[in-house]
Amino acid sequence: MLTVKAYAAPSATDPLIPTTIERRDVGAKDVLIEIRYAGICHSDIHTVRGEWGPISYPQVVGHEIVGVVTEVGPEVTLHQVGDRVGVGCMVNSCRECDNCLAGMEQYCLNGNTGTYAATDKDGTTTQGGYSTHVVVVEDFVLKVPEAIPYEKAAPLLCAGITTYSPLHHWKAGPGKKVAVVGMGGLGHMAVKIAHAMGAEVTVLSQTLSKKDDGLRLGADHYYATKDEETFEKLTNTFDLIINTVSAVIDLDAYLKLLRLDGTLVSVGAPAQPLPVTVFTLFGNRRSFAGSGIGSIGETQEMLDFCAEHGIAPETELVSADQINEAYERVLASDVRYRFVIDINTLN
Amino acid sequence: MLTVKAYAAPSATDPLIPTTIERRDVGAKDVLIEIRYAGICHSDIHTVRGEWGPISYPQVVGHEIVGVVTEVGPEVTLHQVGDRVGVGCMVNSCRECDNCLAGMEQYCLNGNTGTYAATDKDGTTTQGGYSTHVVVVEDFVLKVPEAIPYEKAAPLLCAGITTYSPLHHWKAGPGKKVAVVGMGGLGHMAVKIAHAMGAEVTVLSQTLSKKDDGLRLGADHYYATKDEETFEKLTNTFDLIINTVSAVIDLDAYLKLLRLDGTLVSVGAPAQPLPVTVFTLFGNRRSFAGSGIGSIGETQEMLDFCAEHGIAPETELVSADQINEAYERVLASDVRYRFVIDINTLN
Repeated sequence: MLTVKAYAAPSATDPLIPTTIERRDVGAKDVLIEIRYAGICHSDIHTVRGEWGPISYPQVVGHEIVGVVTEVGPEVTLHQVGDRVGVGCMVNSCRECDNCLAGMEQYCLNGNTGTYAATDKDGTTTQGGYSTHVVVVEDFVLKVPEAIPYEKAAPLLCAGITTYSPLHHWKAGPGKKVAVVGMGGLGHMAVKIAHAMGAEVTVLSQTLSKKDDGLRLGADHYYATKDEETFEKLTNTFDLIINTVSAVIDLDAYLKLLRLDGTLVSVGAPAQPLPVTVFTLFGNRRSFAGSGIGSIGETQEMLDFCAEHGIAPETELVSADQINEAYERVLASDVRYRFVIDINTLN
Repeated sequence: MLTVKAYAAPSATDPLIPTTIERRDVGAKDVLIEIRYAGICHSDIHTVRGEWGPISYPQVVGHEIVGVVTEVGPEVTLHQVGDRVGVGCMVNSCRECDNCLAGMEQYCLNGNTGTYAATDKDGTTTQGGYSTHVVVVEDFVLKVPEAIPYEKAAPLLCAGITTYSPLHHWKAGPGKKVAVVGMGGLGHMAVKIAHAMGAEVTVLSQTLSKKDDGLRLGADHYYATKDEETFEKLTNTFDLIINTVSAVIDLDAYLKLLRLDGTLVSVGAPAQPLPVTVFTLFGNRRSFAGSGIGSIGETQEMLDFCAEHGIAPETELVSADQINEAYERVLASDVRYRFVIDINTLN
């Protein structure tokens, strides 16, 4: 066992504090990663505060992890000591179900093993990336291209893949009109990626406060959803809408913005059900879909795509002792657009 | 103007009664059809009773119409006197919007002209098929193949195309598992068509009372949805679910039955919104979609497909004076599986 430094939540209500945790010994197919940076995702906050169900404490979160390989097991073939690598939202899956066999382990029918707050194969609870080291089985470790700086790579492992996957699956590209609902951590990545894919990109944000950013990052149009006219003006417009908002929205109003055979894909989700009027779906043969992160193969494809197109998230670096403050700022939407923890400050 | 016999609703609450209505003179591109049979669709009942919004009275309904061409306008090129023809749920569209230009006039952005209770191009209210004659512009008139008997062709014009269209669009076929929710007028057609397309077909009905029929019509499996175990057993199973039920159902329970990239398509719809839990859509990247009838081109394709595969609805013939009684039996689900009015009895 390796004892490593970490920042953990001691309970659902207390601030995160510095501590140490145990990592398993490096197994035959494992990779030991010295973590350099970890992104702060809204999911981290939901999880440590028990908003997505009860968890055990202390809990270390963080599933946007980048670092350097410092040790590999004897049977590892995919990575070497010194490699620049990343770990995203999952660290294993059953590898036997139809979805795993189809290379879609994010949809593992037995439940993939989340990077934190999940039960690992050995029965322990997985601990995330707000930590100096992590041990992960090699085929759930991604290669981070040289062209992407470490701290910029971190948010790609969740915010990047979560938006890339539906944009890719629903074929965002030249001639397609794509709307992005919400201009936060996920939304700003969706704008950059959809633009790089060649789509015509529209941001639908509550206000115009981030309009300059949106246009700079690649949006062609930017509308305030507080303005009733927006919904009237954009009726029957989009081939694809990526909804990154986790709060309850008036889904019918957004669905009406879809043109023939258009799809609204939610990657953000409130816990409570959203009402959908079926008659709205009848018009234009519209669809409402969900999408969860992406497969390991697709995540590697996304990293390579971002390297090739010079795409990186907008980040603000924080030290470990600023994590709690950063959480409050995330909740206040006071971040442009992703906090990344400099894990050196944990030492 | 032509004065023709019809059965009309005098108000939202009174029974339908025999009367006469006016049809427009046959225009340059119009076809006059002597109606032989008209199917009774649940939509007819919703409409005459004002359940889908207020309408003007008297109103003749019926949008499953078959008959013989008895006169054509001077510019008609598609049909000739003596042709076996049909008319479905729409009799015109704007012909100018993106969807019409794409040959998807059922999704006309300016609203297609419904066969009844809609405002026609000349400002009059369209009157449906419970009538001896109808005048329709030629390109909204379908050719009924010789292989399909008249009275069997009628229900294809709504129940047939409404289920064929999503089955075709979402690619029901060999290797695909398709579930049909509801075993009524639409459901029994969905079973026959999906089976003919080569899919493995499962019926999900409230009880097993129609199981023998379901299996005889082409279903491979038949489950009662009143049985809780059904939902457990069939989790992650279907590529496509066609929901033909207009009542409120527990949508989440059905969505969970979809496997990777599966879609639940509603062709029946309650007026009130249905709650959808987005987390259910995250699993297996599921979609919830709507589909409304089909295009004229697709309707012709469906008629030819049914002729080729020997598909016809299960019908019960009624005389005009039995329409009100038939309505009550539709509402009591006491029909296997579609009432068809013998229009001869109107004379």
